[in-house]
Amino acid sequence: MMNILVSPNAFKSALSANETAAAICRGFERSDLECKCIELPIADGGDGSLDVISKYLNAEIKQVKVKDPIGRKVDANFGWNDTEKTAIVELAEASGLQLIKEEIQNPLKATTFGTGQLMMEALNLGAKRIYLTLGGSATVDGAIGILDAMGVVFKGHDGILILNPIPSDLHLITEIDTSKIEEQMRGVEMIILCDVKNPLLGDEGAASVFGPQKGASDDDVKTLENGLSHFADVIEEKFDVDIRSVRHGGAAGGISAVLHGVLGASLVDGAEQILDWANFDEAVSSADIVITAEGQIDEQTAYGKGPGRVVKKAKGSGKLTIGMSGSVEADDMGFENFDMVLPIVNAPGKLSVAFANTAKNLERTAYQLGQFLAALEQGRK
Amino acid sequence: MMNILVSPNAFKSALSANETAAAICRGFERSDLECKCIELPIADGGDGSLDVISKYLNAEIKQVKVKDPIGRKVDANFGWNDTEKTAIVELAEASGLQLIKEEIQNPLKATTFGTGQLMMEALNLGAKRIYLTLGGSATVDGAIGILDAMGVVFKGHDGILILNPIPSDLHLITEIDTSKIEEQMRGVEMIILCDVKNPLLGDEGAASVFGPQKGASDDDVKTLENGLSHFADVIEEKFDVDIRSVRHGGAAGGISAVLHGVLGASLVDGAEQILDWANFDEAVSSADIVITAEGQIDEQTAYGKGPGRVVKKAKGSGKLTIGMSGSVEADDMGFENFDMVLPIVNAPGKLSVAFANTAKNLERTAYQLGQFLAALEQGRK
Repeated sequence: MMNILVSPNAFKSALSANETAAAICRGFERSDLECKCIELPIADGGDGSLDVISKYLNAEIKQVKVKDPIGRKVDANFGWNDTEKTAIVELAEASGLQLIKEEIQNPLKATTFGTGQLMMEALNLGAKRIYLTLGGSATVDGAIGILDAMGVVFKGHDGILILNPIPSDLHLITEIDTSKIEEQMRGVEMIILCDVKNPLLGDEGAASVFGPQKGASDDDVKTLENGLSHFADVIEEKFDVDIRSVRHGGAAGGISAVLHGVLGASLVDGAEQILDWANFDEAVSSADIVITAEGQIDEQTAYGKGPGRVVKKAKGSGKLTIGMSGSVEADDMGFENFDMVLPIVNAPGKLSVAFANTAKNLERTAYQLGQFLAALEQGRK
Repeated sequence: MMNILVSPNAFKSALSANETAAAICRGFERSDLECKCIELPIADGGDGSLDVISKYLNAEIKQVKVKDPIGRKVDANFGWNDTEKTAIVELAEASGLQLIKEEIQNPLKATTFGTGQLMMEALNLGAKRIYLTLGGSATVDGAIGILDAMGVVFKGHDGILILNPIPSDLHLITEIDTSKIEEQMRGVEMIILCDVKNPLLGDEGAASVFGPQKGASDDDVKTLENGLSHFADVIEEKFDVDIRSVRHGGAAGGISAVLHGVLGASLVDGAEQILDWANFDEAVSSADIVITAEGQIDEQTAYGKGPGRVVKKAKGSGKLTIGMSGSVEADDMGFENFDMVLPIVNAPGKLSVAFANTAKNLERTAYQLGQFLAALEQGRK
């Protein structure tokens, strides 16, 4: 009996991590291999995390209408465990880059207001703990959208109100008034699952590194950097917290640093937290083979989030490791910590066809591998 | 030490069988697996056979200008072993369907004249044995082109000469005069490697089954069937050979049946003959794993030529069998006699890109498999 641990990421735009794990397990189970499959889908805190976390935290999915990064209405999901009064809010649901066409991206204006609305929904349900997963955001707003939606008031020189604040207003802010939300946030634990370790400011910071991916020009990056830097000063003065040096502080346009400073949120590594919830280490110890999967596996995977962590841990425990990938480079031989990486594509063809075939391709790949392992076992007897 | 027998077909339009075998072996040899690779590329008698046969028969490749199926000049290769005075002529070189664009295909006119020219080149070099490999032809000419090029004269009613005969003339032929070539063909052994078992005539015959693939309309099929049937009568009368019931007689538009009748050619199964030359059975017995490959592997492969034969023999000897394929159906699980079939495509994309990446993709797939087998071995120690 072979124990197979199946811990894939989502295949972005094609299949959730839960569905990916299920497809792989179906393949092995249909094969002649005597095996037991354990499905422990993973995520890195970025988009796609909500489904995975909701599975581990027994949360139901709720949908509400909120504002997208440029103020249009959008249906957004969040997770809710009523027994534990715990909410899971995924930033990308209301404030993700996938919601805005490239030609209208504008990080000087885009805000996380909709994510703040989701958090208010959770608070209104009586949330005592909110997990906010970052990653895939369209914004570099230092959480002013979230705070605005929650009732925080921003003022400028001479006490003038800054209504509907946007990132280009950051440098104007001189005062942050949280009095309206203090009652509601009392006793609420806020934990932010971050997808990157970058700090808030500087060459490795939120504006410089991630701004351009969200449509920021060189000038925009400077404006955002100056705004965030000024905002950090204001926060330090008011809350006595230096958010400049916080690890993970630059995640999702500075949301992590700012909510840490203003609301006392704790920042954790999203991928590690999810592996913890999955009891991954325990599952690895009883596995013979560990399978992971992702839309793309390349030399960066080893240094990256989900699948890279999975195979590093698995290899560290002396397990066989296999990656299934939507694509690899034709001549890429070196996949660190992977014993084998199999692209799952069944034939040359359009990306849209490959996306549509993802579940079938995963199932077939796992089935074929199962047949091969069964034949190997048979030969050994 | 793992013995790996690598016996792939060519990847049509992309890579020869010899190159395919070499790419797979490079992959295994670059991996950590302690292994010995044996390259025994295969073919089924169809196009691509020349390279493979020339390898086994130590033939050099010669190139000459001959006529293509519609009379245009084309460079065509044949194999020549001067010591053995043995020639290898591949029909598709001068008379293959790949030479003619679909819009100008016309099996009522297309002939094998160029293949006859290649055979004359061989005879002029002093050939004592000619292997003619069939498959992939553009023609349903009952070998009249070949015979015409070799100097056979066809006559109609009242002894009228039929010059430059084409398939639509078949029904006019009443006399076949081989006197001009008898001297040159004396003592020359002619062996035809056939790619199909179909008979010359009828529902399973050369015109009905393969005519449409070569551009024949329903009416064309009837014309060709009647012409070949009439031609068979004339041949039986003159040479006292009934070519209607000959196994393999319908290969390549009836060439096999007619050359059997007119020149005494022996007809053999191309795929089997090539496996014989490769000493395949002996190689299988000392192999641990047998790898085959082809542009497409599907449920028909088991009943087909090259790779189907390879894995059937290998499985019959209790060996592990793996197929590497340019494409498979996304949900195809059932590959008879294959323990595992791996599509080699690295990513979604154009066919032309996949073609260009074939060698890299084969090498990477073999390398990954080698790494996995090495890790399995390591784990077993």
